[in-house]
Formats: sequence, C-alpha cells, structure tokens
Amino acid sequence: MKSKYVYSFEEGKKEMKEILGGKGANLAEMTSLGIPVPPGFIVTTEVCEEYYENDKKYPGEVLKQIEEKLAELEKKIGKKLGAKEDPLLVSVRSGAAISMPGMMDTVLNLGLNDESVIGLAEKTKNERFAWDSYRRFIQMFGDVVMGVEHHKFEEQLTEMKKAKGVETDTELDAEDLKKLVEKFKEIVKKSAGKLFPNDPREQMQMSINAVFGSWNNDRAVSYRRINNIKGLKGTAINVQVMVYGNMGKTSGTGVYFTRDPSTGENKFYGEFLMNAQGEDVVAGIRTPRDIEELKDELPKCYAELVEIYKKIEGHYKEMQDMEFTIQEGKLYILQTRSGKRTAHAAVKIAVDMVDEKLIDEKTAVMRIPAEQIDTLLHKQIDPVAKKEFDVLAKGLPASPGAAVGQVVFTAEKARDWQKEGKKVILVRTETSPEDIEGMDAAKGVLTSRGGMTSHAAVVARGMGKCCVAGADKVKINEKEGYFMVEGVKIKEGDIITLDGSTGELFEGELGVVDPELSDDFEKLMGWADKFRKLKVRTNADTPHDSKVAIGFGAEGIGLCRTEHMFFQGDRIKAVREMILAYDEEGRRKALAKLLPYQKEDFMGIFKEMDGRPVTIRLLDPPLHEFLPHGEKEIEEIAKVLDVSVEKLKEKINELKEFNPMLGHRGCRLVVTYPEIAEMQTEAIISAACELVKKGKKVVPEIMVPLVGMKQEFDFNEEIIRRVAEETIKKYGVKLDYLVGTMIEVPRGALIADELAKKAEFFSFGTNDLTQMTFGFSRDDAGRFITDYMEKGLFEKDPFQTLDQTGTGQLMKIAIKKGRKVRKDLKLGICGEHGGEPESVKFCHKIGLDYVSCSPFRVPIARLVAAQAALEE
Amino acid sequence: MKSKYVYSFEEGKKEMKEILGGKGANLAEMTSLGIPVPPGFIVTTEVCEEYYENDKKYPGEVLKQIEEKLAELEKKIGKKLGAKEDPLLVSVRSGAAISMPGMMDTVLNLGLNDESVIGLAEKTKNERFAWDSYRRFIQMFGDVVMGVEHHKFEEQLTEMKKAKGVETDTELDAEDLKKLVEKFKEIVKKSAGKLFPNDPREQMQMSINAVFGSWNNDRAVSYRRINNIKGLKGTAINVQVMVYGNMGKTSGTGVYFTRDPSTGENKFYGEFLMNAQGEDVVAGIRTPRDIEELKDELPKCYAELVEIYKKIEGHYKEMQDMEFTIQEGKLYILQTRSGKRTAHAAVKIAVDMVDEKLIDEKTAVMRIPAEQIDTLLHKQIDPVAKKEFDVLAKGLPASPGAAVGQVVFTAEKARDWQKEGKKVILVRTETSPEDIEGMDAAKGVLTSRGGMTSHAAVVARGMGKCCVAGADKVKINEKEGYFMVEGVKIKEGDIITLDGSTGELFEGELGVVDPELSDDFEKLMGWADKFRKLKVRTNADTPHDSKVAIGFGAEGIGLCRTEHMFFQGDRIKAVREMILAYDEEGRRKALAKLLPYQKEDFMGIFKEMDGRPVTIRLLDPPLHEFLPHGEKEIEEIAKVLDVSVEKLKEKINELKEFNPMLGHRGCRLVVTYPEIAEMQTEAIISAACELVKKGKKVVPEIMVPLVGMKQEFDFNEEIIRRVAEETIKKYGVKLDYLVGTMIEVPRGALIADELAKKAEFFSFGTNDLTQMTFGFSRDDAGRFITDYMEKGLFEKDPFQTLDQTGTGQLMKIAIKKGRKVRKDLKLGICGEHGGEPESVKFCHKIGLDYVSCSPFRVPIARLVAAQAALEE
Repeated sequence: MKSKYVYSFEEGKKEMKEILGGKGANLAEMTSLGIPVPPGFIVTTEVCEEYYENDKKYPGEVLKQIEEKLAELEKKIGKKLGAKEDPLLVSVRSGAAISMPGMMDTVLNLGLNDESVIGLAEKTKNERFAWDSYRRFIQMFGDVVMGVEHHKFEEQLTEMKKAKGVETDTELDAEDLKKLVEKFKEIVKKSAGKLFPNDPREQMQMSINAVFGSWNNDRAVSYRRINNIKGLKGTAINVQVMVYGNMGKTSGTGVYFTRDPSTGENKFYGEFLMNAQGEDVVAGIRTPRDIEELKDELPKCYAELVEIYKKIEGHYKEMQDMEFTIQEGKLYILQTRSGKRTAHAAVKIAVDMVDEKLIDEKTAVMRIPAEQIDTLLHKQIDPVAKKEFDVLAKGLPASPGAAVGQVVFTAEKARDWQKEGKKVILVRTETSPEDIEGMDAAKGVLTSRGGMTSHAAVVARGMGKCCVAGADKVKINEKEGYFMVEGVKIKEGDIITLDGSTGELFEGELGVVDPELSDDFEKLMGWADKFRKLKVRTNADTPHDSKVAIGFGAEGIGLCRTEHMFFQGDRIKAVREMILAYDEEGRRKALAKLLPYQKEDFMGIFKEMDGRPVTIRLLDPPLHEFLPHGEKEIEEIAKVLDVSVEKLKEKINELKEFNPMLGHRGCRLVVTYPEIAEMQTEAIISAACELVKKGKKVVPEIMVPLVGMKQEFDFNEEIIRRVAEETIKKYGVKLDYLVGTMIEVPRGALIADELAKKAEFFSFGTNDLTQMTFGFSRDDAGRFITDYMEKGLFEKDPFQTLDQTGTGQLMKIAIKKGRKVRKDLKLGICGEHGGEPESVKFCHKIGLDYVSCSPFRVPIARLVAAQAALEE
Repeated sequence: MKSKYVYSFEEGKKEMKEILGGKGANLAEMTSLGIPVPPGFIVTTEVCEEYYENDKKYPGEVLKQIEEKLAELEKKIGKKLGAKEDPLLVSVRSGAAISMPGMMDTVLNLGLNDESVIGLAEKTKNERFAWDSYRRFIQMFGDVVMGVEHHKFEEQLTEMKKAKGVETDTELDAEDLKKLVEKFKEIVKKSAGKLFPNDPREQMQMSINAVFGSWNNDRAVSYRRINNIKGLKGTAINVQVMVYGNMGKTSGTGVYFTRDPSTGENKFYGEFLMNAQGEDVVAGIRTPRDIEELKDELPKCYAELVEIYKKIEGHYKEMQDMEFTIQEGKLYILQTRSGKRTAHAAVKIAVDMVDEKLIDEKTAVMRIPAEQIDTLLHKQIDPVAKKEFDVLAKGLPASPGAAVGQVVFTAEKARDWQKEGKKVILVRTETSPEDIEGMDAAKGVLTSRGGMTSHAAVVARGMGKCCVAGADKVKINEKEGYFMVEGVKIKEGDIITLDGSTGELFEGELGVVDPELSDDFEKLMGWADKFRKLKVRTNADTPHDSKVAIGFGAEGIGLCRTEHMFFQGDRIKAVREMILAYDEEGRRKALAKLLPYQKEDFMGIFKEMDGRPVTIRLLDPPLHEFLPHGEKEIEEIAKVLDVSVEKLKEKINELKEFNPMLGHRGCRLVVTYPEIAEMQTEAIISAACELVKKGKKVVPEIMVPLVGMKQEFDFNEEIIRRVAEETIKKYGVKLDYLVGTMIEVPRGALIADELAKKAEFFSFGTNDLTQMTFGFSRDDAGRFITDYMEKGLFEKDPFQTLDQTGTGQLMKIAIKKGRKVRKDLKLGICGEHGGEPESVKFCHKIGLDYVSCSPFRVPIARLVAAQAALEE
C-alpha cells in the first residue's frame, strides 16, 4: 500500500497528534468543526522519522504528495504560489506531537519572489506592505533555511535607517524596502554562496528540509532532554495559507483563553491589537487591549469569536488558549491548544467543569499537574514584584515558598533576633542538627553547599519552611559577618528575599503573597482519595508537624526521626553526657534522663495521630553530630557538662570520621551501645501503653535504620522485642506493634529475603539508598551534579526524582525477595522521593503500600497516587 | 532397619569421619591395619545430632548398643568395668569430623570407684598410683560432668600439701591421696548437690551426656564460628581402654611426626618421656627427650614405632602426627592425624611425596594451605624471640612481615632518618597519599586507625612492607613526639617491632628471620600453573613493583594506580598548580608539565611488563588529597607555588568534602575536567607507541574508575578513544588497546548491560564495592567492625574476605548482564580480595578471567586458583 505522507486539514483530526503533530491535529480538528481556519496541509512526523533514518532524505513520493496537496490548496483558494497576480503565500511551521515552543524553525510569507511581490502589491493595493513582507521573507528564509547570520540583515537595516535619518522600520517606505530587498539578496549570495531561490517550489522544499533539520538542533535536543520528552517520531510540518492582521483598520490579531488562566474564572479572557501581526502582541511594543473592547471595534468578529470559543471548549472539554487574526474584517483562527494556567486556576477549572458536567471526576483529577499544586501550599513571591528585581544568586529550590528577612549567620542569633521580633533568614555553609532551633526561628534558610537532600533541605521541607540550598556563588565569611556574591556584599542584618520554589536569592525585600486553600481544592483532593490505592503518610518528628500533616490528609507517619528530639532544651545535655560517658553504666544514667523526654515526645505524637500508624526510626545519625564543633561552643559545653575542655575535644576527635555517611550510625550504634535501643523502645512502648490505658488506639511501628545484614537486624530486633514485651507486661495492657527495617543500604535490598524472615515491614530510605547506589554523597554531590546536568549526563537529579534504573532496580529486587518470604510484608518509602510525582508513580507501579513525605507534600502525593491508579 | 549407633574400632575405617569423627575413624583405621591401638568403641555423631534435635535426649537403643559394645570390650580385654579385681578403666573422649583441639570435654580413668580402686592398687601393686588416678578421676569428672568449679579441688590439694609441708603433688603418699578422695567427694556433694556416682555405668552415661553437651559450649561454638566450620552433625564419642605411661621404668609416653614439621625433612621426629602420662609431655614440666634416645631405653618398642610410622604414612600418604604410650614395655598408639607443619615444611613434604610417588601433583597442590605460604614471602619474627616478649598492643594484620625500627611520626622524618642510615617505623593515626615517600623509607608502618583496606594497609601491601593498622589502643601525640599504650610511653626514636602477620606490636627489638624461596616452592607453583584456569595479575604502580610481581609469576597488571605517581618529586608541584588553576587554560598548562613524567612512568612499566597486559586506571582520588593540610606545610607550599597562603587555604577549604569517599573523584573528575583524562590518555598511548616503534609489544588497557552510569562511562570513553586515536595517528604505528571500566559502584553492577555496550572489560573494584554495598566506610569501619566481630555479627571482615552474599551477588548480576551484551567481555577483580584464598575461589566459580593482587600475594592467588580448578 502506498503510504500517505501528506494530509489536508480536512483529512485529519485531533486524535492524530502522533503523526500530524499537536498543532496540525488541532488545525485539522477545527477545520472539521467548521471553524474558520486558513486552509493548508500537513507533512507527517513519519516523514521526519524517515528523513533521519535515511540519512536526511525522504521518499520521492513525499514531494509528489506535497505537490498534489498544494494543487488542491491553490484550487480551493483560487490563488497560485508564485503567481504574478494575487499570489498564494503560505507559512511553513513545525509542530511535534508534544509542544516545544520556539525550539524549531518557522518560515513565513513563503511564495514571494521578484514577480509575486508585485502581484501582492497590486492585489493589496499596498506596495509598502508587499515589499516589507518580501524583505521579511528573505531575512527569515536566509537565516533559517540558508544559515545566514541574523545580525548581517539587522546591520543592513540599521544602516538604511541611518541613511534615511529615521528611527523605526515603519518609517521606511516602499522604495527603501525595495533597495533593502536587493541588499538582502546580496547578503544571502555572499554569506551562503548561493542565490536566494526565486522559485517558490524550491523555497518550499528548502523550507521543509530546514524545519525537519531543526528537529535535531541543539536547542530542540536539550529541550526534549530537559523536559524528558521521549518516543516522538519527529516533527510534522504545517503548510498554511498566510493571513495578515496588519492590512489596515479592519485587520487585527489576538490571543484568548476560554477561561481566566490566573483565577480559573469561567469567562472570555484575552487581548488583541488592531492592524498588527501576531508577533506584535508577543513582542510587547504596543500594549494589547482587553478582548472585550473588540466588541466595539468589530462587533461581528467579536460575536463570532465568542461563539467559536464556546464551541471549541465544549468540544475539547478543556480550557483552550487560541490565536486569531482578522484580515480585512474576516476572522481566522490560527491555533488552539490547552491553555497554561496557574495552580489555582487549574483546580477551579477542573472542579467547575465537573459541575458543568463537561468532564467527570477522574478526568478532573488527571488534569492537575501535581507538582504545580505545591505553589498553593506555600507563600509565593508576588510575580509583579519579582519582575523588578534582579536575581542575586541561584541555588537549588530545596524547599518551596518565599521568605523575607534579615541575614544572620548563626542559629543562636536567629533565635535571639526572632525573640526580639525580627524576621531573619539563616545563612550557613551547611546546616547541622545543632542549627535546628535556629532554622525553626528563621523565616527561611540559605546554604552555600549541599543538595536537594542535604540536612538543610530535608529539615526545611519538613518544617514547610522556605530553603535555598547549595547556592555556591554565595561565599560566607561568618566570622566577619557578611557574605559575598560576585562582588556584592551582604552584611548581617541586611534584608534578603528567598524564593524556595525556584532557588533564587534577591537583595532587599520583595512582596510576598500568602497561600490559600480553596474549597475546590478540598473537593478535588476528595476525588483523588477515592481513586488512589497507595496510602499517603508523612515524615513528621513533632506533634505540630503531625497535626499539619493530618490537615493535609496524611494517613499515618512513615518516618518519625527520633534524633531531632534530642536537640531540644535540656535533652541535648543528657545526650552529650551519654556520649561522653566512660562506660555502659554512665551511658545508662544519661539515657535514663532522656527517657521521660522521649516518652513525652511520643505521647504527643501518638495523641495527634489518633490511632493512625506511626513508624518510629531508632537513632540514626553518628554521635559526633550531637557534639559541638566551634572552639567557643566547646568551652561553654565543657562547663555545662562539667568536663575538661581537653576531654571534650578528645572525645570529639575520637568520634571524627572520614566518611560519616558510611560510618558509625544507625543500627550500628545499637550493636555497640544496645542500651540506646533499649531506652528508645521503652520510651515508645511505654508512651503507647499509657495511652492505651486511657482507651486510645496507638499503632507503633519501630524501624531499625541502616540495616545491611541479617545479623544487624536480628540483633536490634531481639532488643526491641524483649524491651517491648517487658514494658507491655509492666503496664498490663494489650498492644500490637510492628518491628521492621529501613531498606537504605544496597546490601539490605540484596538480602531482603533474609531480612523479611523477622522484619514485619520495609521502608525504603531512598535518600541513603540513592547515595550508596550511585556512590554520591548528597552533601558533596551538589558540586559535580551541576556539571553532570550541564553536560547532559543527567536528565534528572536522582536525589529529586527516583532513579528507576538503578535505585529502583534494588527496590524491585527487595520487594520480590521480601514478599517471597513474607506475603503480607508492609512496604513503604520514606525518602524525599515519597513526595515527588514521578517517583510516587513508580512506587505505585512496583506495589508499595504507602509513600511517606513531608507534610506539605502530602496533597501532591495523594493527587499523584490517584493519577497513577487512574493511568493503569 | 535398626540404626547402628555404636561401632567398635574393628568396624570402622578412615573414610567414616563424618559419623565416627576424625579421631575415631583413625583409631578404627589403625585397628584394621593391625597397629596396636587400645581397644574401644565409638558412639556416632548422629547420636549427637539426635541428642540436640530431641531436646537433649537420645533413643534408648543407643544405651543398649553401648552396653553391647562394652560387653564385647570386657570380653576382649578380660576385665570388667567397676570390678573389684583388675578393673577395666576407660577414657571417654570427644572427636568431631573436623578437629577442634581442646574445645570439648574428656573424661579419663572412668570406671574407678571405692571398690575398683582397691582392685587397681592390687593389680598394679601400686597403691599410690591407684589412689592418685582415683582422685584425678573425681576431680575431672566433678569439673567436666558435674559442673564443680575447678579451683575448689585445687584449693583442697594446696591445703593438703601445706598441711604435709610438701611442695609437689608427687610428694603426697597413698594415705594422703585417700584422704583427698574423701575431701573431693565432699566437695562434689556440696557444690553439685549430688553424690559422686559410684556406679561405673552411671559414670559412663553421665560422661557421654557431658561430652555431647560440650559440643555446644561457648568455646566450641566460637571456635567453629571463627574457623568457619559448618555442616557437621556433632561430635562422636570415643570410649577406649585406658593405658598408662606412668607405671614405672618400662612405661613412657610420647608424640612423634613422620617427617620434621618445621623443615619437612623426611625423618623420624619426636619426643618422649619415660614413666609419664601424655599431659606431662604437653605441660612442659619435665623436658622431653629426643625420640632417637628411645632406642637405648626400649629398643624393641623403638623398632616397632619406626615400623608403624612407615606403615602409617605409606597408608595415609600424608605426614602424620601420632601419640603413643608404652605401658610396662607394651607399645600402644593412641592417635594419628595429619600433622601441622610450617609453610616451608608443607611445600617440601608435598614435593618430596610426589618424588616418592606417594601422591600425584594435583594432590600436592591441594595439600598446601594457600594462606600459609604468605609467610614464605616475608620476614618473620623469630618464634623463639617472640615467646620472650609481651605484646604491647594489637591491631589488624594489615600487611604481613616483620619490621624493627625507631619510631617516627612524620613522613618527612622517616625520609630524613632513613637517609642518615636509620631504620624507622612510621607511626601515624592514618596515612594519606602525602605519606607515601615516608612509608617507602620506613621498614614498617603502624596506624592507630583504619581497617584492612585503609590507605596504609593497601599501600603497604603493595610495597610488600609490614604494616599493623588500626591499633586503637595506640594514642598518638604527634606534636610532643610520643605515643601511649595503656600507660606505656613510646617516644620518637624508641625502637619497636611490628608483626604484620599477626597485627602485634612489641616494645624493643625482636629477632627477625629472612624469607627464602626454595626450589621446591618453584616446582609446586609450576604444577599449580598447569592446573589453574584463572589468570593472575598484579596491582603495581611502578616498574619496581612490576618487576617484583613478575618474579612472583604475575601475568599482567590488573591495576596500575596513576595517582601514586603524582606524588613523586616535582610532579606534585605540577599537580597542585593544576588544582589551583583558575581556568581550563591554567589546568592545561600544569597538565602539560605532568605529561612527560606520566609518559616516562608508563614506559618504565610497559618495558618491565614486556608484552603482558597492563590495566591503567585513570586518576581516582579526590583532588584535595593532593593538597597539604598542616598549617606549616600550607605555608611552605604556598611559597613554592607562589600563591598566597589565603588562596591556598581557600582552595583547600573549597575542596573539603563531608564524605570524600562518595565525593568528587574517579570518572566524576573527568566530567568536570576532561583535560585530565586527555593528558593521561596521551601519556599512556604515546608511551605505548614509542615502545611499539622500537619493536616492543605493549598491551594497554585503560580503565575508567567509579562508573555508576552509562553516561559517565560514555563521556570518558569518548575522550579516551579520541585522544588515543589522535596519538596513534601521530606516531603512525599500529596499537591495539582496550577501554573498560571498574565495577565498584553498586549502580555500575546493576546497569552492567548498558555499560558493556561500550566497555571492553570490567574489573571489579571490590574495595569500594564492599564499602558501598554495606555502606561501611573502610576508613571508619574499624571502630564498629570490632564490635561486630566480638558480638558474633560477622564471621569474616568483608574487607578481607569477599562477602559472597551481598557484594558477590552484585558481581554475579554484573557478569550476567555484561556477558549477555558482550560475550567476550574480559572480567577481572582488582580489589584487595584478589589475593585472598576464599575470595579467589569465588572469583573462579563465578567465571572471572583473572584476579589481580599485590605482588606478594601473587603466589597465593596462583595456588588457590589451581586448587579451585582442581576442586571442581
């Protein structure tokens, strides 16, 4: 069978995106709907595919089919390409199945040559218009098709204006433009070594080749890489009759949306310019007018537009973004596509459309880009204000939101200043657990080192606090109290603004807009909950976080990090006493002081969680994280602890590790100091028992971190069960609890079958698992991951989006092996990936029971979980 | 069918070790051979197994069969157990299939009671002997069977001697001993709460229970764990007629070997004592006499012994270690087993036995414990001298050999003192690449931190230099120039001795014995080479190391670490200039200075390797390893480099990493600084081309380290191939080279199929792979691995013996995936495991092409590779 390579608009429909491209399929659909679209035809994406497969050639049949469709077009319009009288002019535009705005080439005004320009002038009775169109065509064709550098034409144009003593292009008259056409042709001849083609067929063939060529230009390739666009055949090419909005008072052009893209309100929304071309609207030289005013200018066209927008939205059942041109009182629709919108609008539109019975609830849920709703939950920099400020530096968008405050360099000062009623931003090279109270006091956190899962990032996200991390241009001089960014000096007390959603840092105070959760949002999330299969838990360490997370719909705690509690108030003193103790007895004494605090902490959390499961991880970080590191702090703390500075320093030195990430932490601490796990288990279980006694329901799940060996887990498990049973017996209540393990060490995944013999649940700690699978320290990788991104080695930072190939492979191994031994093994994820859309979908696919993420990511996870289920 | 639980010696043979135990099977075998063995019977290991399976009970049938065999025995000997006249006395001894010397319990003189002791006295006409045997029996039975603390008997004995005013046991007469028997029975009654059993049947049953019980005592369990003894059913029990070497002038006892166990010489070798029991020989109270002297004492017995030893060795075809007792002129053989021997003797005996046609070459190769031959290649502390010194501290046996020298604390001083002709030991907390020259200058290296694959350990092994690592009791005060070990202070300049084979540290100078490779050794290794399939390469960074390795039989270099070259002489200056350069141009300028050095290095190595393949790893460590860290050094180096101290410090600080092991190193450096790989490739390939021009054969294999992603490898490979092709073209020669990758990051193993598309070989870097698979930093793990060992979580340190379950699983995944894509993928290992016997066997089993290890481990690897092939 003969392949069909070229489709007229009448022959296509919106479902044919894959071969006609998005733009082409929509033009065809509108044509079928009877919308006034300038006629044309589409060369399919399959031709592009063959073009690249066959060393940039395509079958002769393609040209033949183009010729046929062109003849049809000429017949339909009654004009001929390159004709001396009233010539047909066309545009040649790219259009892939997925939109890649501005990445590929376009040629307009094709068909003009030394003869047809005269015909155009005569027909339009506008010589200037005809010659201006011609010189624009040569310029665009020369640049895009023949590879002549753009600036050469611009220089000539500038010279001409200078010679004429005028300022703008529009002041050049027809004669000037005629001369310019000659000069432009000269430039083409010299630069390209070839004459500008006078034959419109040659123009067309060259243009088609150029557009196909642009599919693989650097910009387009990077765009696809960055946006993770894969599996496309190539671009289609749309050849369409030119229409002009700049042919006088009854011509014009505009764009409109079928609903308000910023509020979502169901109203006609758009802008237009009279006597102008499309690019003028975009370029912002003239200020466009509100679409309502068109009613006065051209009431018939306005009415027609309103009719069309309703028809189209009703047809597409989706908010549309459209372009139109009016040529001498005749309306043409040039494009329609799904309109971009704010998160707020997206939610409102989806919910409204369900109310309007345009779409069903499932479709509404699928419509919301999950990542976008993050902006609904956080403060945002006022977009208007943002335009007026230059970005001072850019780091990683570590925790979304916006923050304005005075710069401080120490956690202590952050606390002090906050007590004085100041708003502060804590600026540090990298934060450590010692800084937690300071972070809590600050409005936002800025670090010059560390990645998306650095301490600062993880903690800030947990707190729902704005954080920009790893801004490596920020050079901090803590001692002298300032930081430098490429020559700009910001001192302590100066005001800065952070945008945690983009990673941007600004000098001075920018306006900030508060978040607001609408009823529509609640409604939508309710639908999502109906469809999803994955449970969504939260990572929370305090009753406050727990409460926030429940507000966002969390169904349990997937990760409660006990160490964060160790830093509060008097506890840190007891922790340090434990670390400095000479022997087990000393450690037990110090741990006994900690016990009531921990118990109280857990009671608070259990109460808030009100019967929902709470997974508590035993102490994870290396002990040196709890000791001070500055000279002055060491002295102070030595005094408080009543030990010599020397002894304290000696201990600090002794605990120092070359690679603390792979050091003495997690379950390894328990092997050395079993009494720590004993205290923590007693605290957890006695807290639970107290509440059970009061008739509350508590579901504690005790989790052993950093397990890589069966022996490690068994050692920990034995202690936990022993102490738990003793404690339950002491209280004389009935309490069910689970003991499980993190899977965050590659070996843990590899021996999951052995672990599952005793472990009742697995929780994938994908932060550490990613670190060890790649061998990337998350605290150091920021440095080279930037290079990886720039050089195209990474599509996505694996600390942000779960690496399905490597880390994901280990997860699958662990699930398969684990479930083989224990069919009802409970599986979850508590790494930062638990709130990232692509990763959540992966978790759904591989069969986890739940994801756990920071409170502010809970709604995103709920939504994505629903989308994943609906996509199946 | 009725199970057979008990075998008389006549019924067994040596092949029945599994059920009769090693001792029993050999006693049976000797009985069959007509060797005079005191008669007896064996309760099988299966009874022990059932005993544990059935909650410490065994079938009634067992007791019945024991009774039957006992009756047979009584009939054979013509004596009765517990008889009043000439009673039968027996020993009850443990004996598993694998020898566990001294770990389980034994009961001697069983059958004595208040009646039979009188019969014994009458029969032997030696009342003192009879009562002494009786009190010994009560003591042993009380301790072993009835759980009475040993010291209680000893105290009573001491009291008795005191009362009598005598010094030794032998001065007590029969009457004293009679009294002691009464007192001992009192002790048993009080401590055990039961009477000492007078009934010999009861004595026997209790003894058998006790021996089975001792199978699972703490000592035995740890022994099996430490020696990795698995899969045994349990212990057998040997019940054998007692014979006595202490019955007068014509009695005696001794041990002998069929060949000299320290030299291997084929001669009768042994010791004896007249009128003594076996334990007297072992206890060392009296000095045993040379076996030759027995000829004069009891010529008939001597002649009989000689005849027996020849018969037995000829029968077993293996050097035997035997025990004998002569009771009143009658010779009895009590035991025969394979004799322990030195490495030197093992080699000589195996080779001699082949010459004597006793065994074939394969058997000879299988006979040598591979790990043992390590001692043949290194200096050893004189074993005689060693006995006289106390161990000051113990660390890890990081690199074998012995070293004596004066303590120095800095690499600089090591070099300076060595130049002055002093022998020095470099003592450091942990070494870093800066210390290499100092390590080279020292006789040995001692560190207080770090494990078996710490920098000090790896480098020292490569140098064949003695090293004790991670001796954590050594507290170094570098500033003041001393170190402390639990109160002992060792100052700079003091002499210490290290034993790198045991990890021991001694104060003062111990005698040291030089290594010596015999012709026998060469012969044996030649046989090994015939049988093995695995190739053996070496890890070598210099022409000198290469030469040493070839001397040991290396067939190529599996790992040439280029960074070690960076520290020599002027190079380090150029390296530092490169690191401090502001931009690519500056880096290229510094690299240009390094190029000729690197080229020269490679030429030297290629020349030594003379056509053997050489795998060169591109730069691996993080750049900060090349910068100084001490205040004073920074100042000096700033001067040399002509940069400000501040700038240098800033750079050092900038390069600092939280977890350098997971930081900016390996192929990641090349992504940031492609010019480094360009320089290294140019140096490698131009060195090869120069030699090819001179008619030499060179086989370079360029290896990319730390690859976890296909994109990383491809990025590096593209640079290497481009520069290599350019260089080869420039020289106009023909040169084949390979480009491959280390597999040392878990993700690299998981995506091996993707890597194998372009990688021509894989080399498993199991040091790093172990680190990341377990999440153990090898520099820090020393601290908790000790706890793991003590608490039984580890059988073996995974940095010493490859973890087959986890790390090995990743290797298998990589091999399967890699070979699927590239059938002829070359596979090797270059981690430290490449020279460890168990790991080498694993490498053989999973189908690697070669192992690579430090030069001094090459012979071990060759031998084990042969054993692995023969075991198949």
